[in-house]
Amino acid sequence: MLAKTPEPPYYSVILASERTEVTPQRSAYEIMASQMLDMAARQPGYLGVETIENELGHGITVSYWESLEAIKAWRDHVDHQAAQKLGKEVWYKAYTLRIAKVERAYEFEK
Amino acid sequence: MLAKTPEPPYYSVILASERTEVTPQRSAYEIMASQMLDMAARQPGYLGVETIENELGHGITVSYWESLEAIKAWRDHVDHQAAQKLGKEVWYKAYTLRIAKVERAYEFEK
Repeated sequence: MLAKTPEPPYYSVILASERTEVTPQRSAYEIMASQMLDMAARQPGYLGVETIENELGHGITVSYWESLEAIKAWRDHVDHQAAQKLGKEVWYKAYTLRIAKVERAYEFEK
Repeated sequence: MLAKTPEPPYYSVILASERTEVTPQRSAYEIMASQMLDMAARQPGYLGVETIENELGHGITVSYWESLEAIKAWRDHVDHQAAQKLGKEVWYKAYTLRIAKVERAYEFEK
């Protein structure tokens, strides 16, 4: 689950979301969410992702990127644009998306 | 669940974690985690938090702060220090903590 990222600085995209309904569209949502994660991982400048959704349909996904340019290129990717449109129209009741520059990072492992 | 934050810039602390065991210590962990969230919310410079844990004990908590100084003061708070120690000794198998400066934010609500 934990993303292995290089030394800072790099960028993060923090997406916190609330789904409209958890049950009916769950599998369609999950298929596309999983496709988007796979596709993001193949983009230039991608560094990693941490993502969690709970049983209430509340989710946090943090993806890590080398640069703002890499984030913009992924934002504008045609398949990702289609997913974003569906997200607004169907899947998400509300979300907040933040772009943040990672300045420091610490890892702990037992 | 979504944090209402002012216009950027401000800071975020992104904590991604994996618990050692989900069942036995769950309630003790939850009590302290909840106390820490309440206590953080009373610190100077606190702006909000988004937090999720799934059934596997994987969690993401993102807290938002006015400044690096506010983050440091909360990091050094004596009760928070005790919780951090317990986190390393008992609760967490691994975690990654990142400090990131939020440069842009977008909100969507149906």
